[in-house]
Amino acid sequence: MPLPLEKTMAAARRVSRIYRVDRGKNFRLKHISPDDTGGLTKNHAEIQWRAKTFLDFANARLAALQEKLYAQKRWSVLIVLQAMDAAGKDGTIKHVMSGINPQGCEVTPFKVPSDTERAHTFLWRCALRVPEAGMIGIFNRSHYEEVLAPRIHPEFLKAQNLPPSLVTKKIWQERYQDINAFEKHLARNGVLILKFYLHLSKEEQKKRLLERINEKNKNWKFSESDVKERALWDQYMAAYEDAIRATAKPWAPWFVVPADNKWYTRAIVAVSIIDALESLKLKRPKNPKGHKKTLLDAQKSLAGET
Amino acid sequence: MPLPLEKTMAAARRVSRIYRVDRGKNFRLKHISPDDTGGLTKNHAEIQWRAKTFLDFANARLAALQEKLYAQKRWSVLIVLQAMDAAGKDGTIKHVMSGINPQGCEVTPFKVPSDTERAHTFLWRCALRVPEAGMIGIFNRSHYEEVLAPRIHPEFLKAQNLPPSLVTKKIWQERYQDINAFEKHLARNGVLILKFYLHLSKEEQKKRLLERINEKNKNWKFSESDVKERALWDQYMAAYEDAIRATAKPWAPWFVVPADNKWYTRAIVAVSIIDALESLKLKRPKNPKGHKKTLLDAQKSLAGET
Repeated sequence: MPLPLEKTMAAARRVSRIYRVDRGKNFRLKHISPDDTGGLTKNHAEIQWRAKTFLDFANARLAALQEKLYAQKRWSVLIVLQAMDAAGKDGTIKHVMSGINPQGCEVTPFKVPSDTERAHTFLWRCALRVPEAGMIGIFNRSHYEEVLAPRIHPEFLKAQNLPPSLVTKKIWQERYQDINAFEKHLARNGVLILKFYLHLSKEEQKKRLLERINEKNKNWKFSESDVKERALWDQYMAAYEDAIRATAKPWAPWFVVPADNKWYTRAIVAVSIIDALESLKLKRPKNPKGHKKTLLDAQKSLAGET
Repeated sequence: MPLPLEKTMAAARRVSRIYRVDRGKNFRLKHISPDDTGGLTKNHAEIQWRAKTFLDFANARLAALQEKLYAQKRWSVLIVLQAMDAAGKDGTIKHVMSGINPQGCEVTPFKVPSDTERAHTFLWRCALRVPEAGMIGIFNRSHYEEVLAPRIHPEFLKAQNLPPSLVTKKIWQERYQDINAFEKHLARNGVLILKFYLHLSKEEQKKRLLERINEKNKNWKFSESDVKERALWDQYMAAYEDAIRATAKPWAPWFVVPADNKWYTRAIVAVSIIDALESLKLKRPKNPKGHKKTLLDAQKSLAGET
C-alpha cells in the first residue's frame, strides 16, 4: 500500500503538469491564475503543514535523483528561473534545492551585464554557464532577460553597441530563433532544460515589496528599481507572454507556476523537476567489464595489509 | 594613378572571390585544384618575389583595418582555419597575421578536448572563445572538428558519453544544423565569420611530412598520428566536402583555398580577409557630443601645468 506522502506526490505530479507549456502557440498568461493552488485550500492549516512535510519528502527524492545524475555523467539539467521582482526566485532555489549535494549543483545569478559580457553576443554569458554532464545548473534570471528588459528599455539595447545595420524590427523574433536553436542544441546533446516562470500578481508584489520596506531584516532585499519596473508591469507581462509563446517547446518547456502562495510555488517547482528527472530513467553506471575482479583484488589487497 | 601594388591587390581580390563558397549546395571539392595559382606561374621568380612584397603590403593594410575594428568596438571577426595536417595552418597564421597588434587578436588552437570540454556540448569550448566586439579571433581548428574526426573515428564520438537515445543516424545532420544556427546567431550579433579550408593534395602532404622527418629543425612538428590520419585521406575528403556543402552560407562563407603553394595560400587568405573587412566600412568612433570641448579643456589644463 503506498504511503500517504507517495500518494500526495503522485497527485502533485498530475497537478504540476497543468502548468507545463510544451508548445507556446496557444498559450495565454491569463489562462493561469497567480493565486491558483490546484484545488487545495490555502487557508487550510493541515494542507499547509503537509506542504512543508511534503517539501522535505520531495527534497529527499530530488537528492537521490541528483546522486544518480552525478554518478552517470551523461545528462545534465538546466533550470531557468524567470519572474518579476519578489516573485520568489531566491526562496524557491533555497527551499527546493537545499537537500541536494552542492558539489553537483551550480547556481548562476545573472545580474546587470559586465563590460566583457556586453562585448559578446547576448547568449555568450549563459552559454558559458550551461552545466556539464552530471550537474544541475540553475540560472537565476537567464538569457530570457535579453528579450525582456532591453525590449522595454531601448537604452539597454543601445548599450549593447551592436552594428546599427543589424538592429531591425525583427530583432526580437531573431532573438527567439537564436534562443530556440541554442536550447535545441543543448537538448540534443544531453541537457534537460526546464524553464520556470513564477507567475505573481501585481497585488501580491505590492504586499511583498511593502514587507521589504516595513520589516527591518528584509530591508536589504529592497531595491528602488523594483518599484520603477513595477510601473511597467503591463509591458513586462506582454513581453513574458510573447517570449513564452515563442520559446515553449517539447525539448525546452516552460512551467508557468502560480506564485502568490510560496508553499504552492515551491511544491510545484520541486515536483516538476522530479517528474522530469524520473523520465530520464537515471542509473548509476554499470561496472565495466573486469571491474568486478578489480574490486575483489583490491579487497584482498586491502584485507592483507599489515 | 594607382600604384602597382594597389593594382595587384585589386586583381588578387577578384581572384580570391573564386574560392569563396557562399552557398554549399552545388559545391564539390574537385572543382578547386590544390595547386591552382589563379593563372600565376609558380616557377616565375618575379611573381614569387612580388608575392612576398605583396604580403607585406597586405599585412600593413590588415593592420590598419584591425586598428579601426578595435577602436569602433562594434564588430568582431572570427577566422576559422581547417585543413589536413601540414596544409599550412600555422604558417598562414604566422605570415598573414604577423603585422597586426596582438592586443586585438586572439588565436585559439583547439587540441584534443579536455575532460571538462568533453563534459559539455560540442559547441561549448568554441562558443567560449568567440571574440568580443573589436577583436579578431582565430580558431586553429574549430567546432568543425566535431563533424570530422568523430565521424571517421566512432570511438571519439563514444568518448563524448552522450545519452545513447540521442545518438542516432541523424547526428551529423543535427550537428550541421546546430553549427549553422550558432553561426547565424553570431553573424546577427556583429561577428563577421570567415572560414578557410586549406585545400592540400595528398602528394604535397607526403612531401611536407617527409621534410618534417628529414629536416632536423622540423622534426618537432612531426607526429605519428599525421601518418595514421593520412591513411584515411578519402574519408576525410568526403567529410570535409559534406561539411562545407552543409555549412557554407552567405553570413558564414567558406573559402576553399589551394594549399599546395604556400605563397599563394597566404596571399589569398590575406586578401580574402581584407576584402571582407573593407565591406564592413569600419570607422573610428565619432567624438561624442561635447567631447571636442573636453579635449580643448584638457589641452589647456595640460599646457598650464607648472
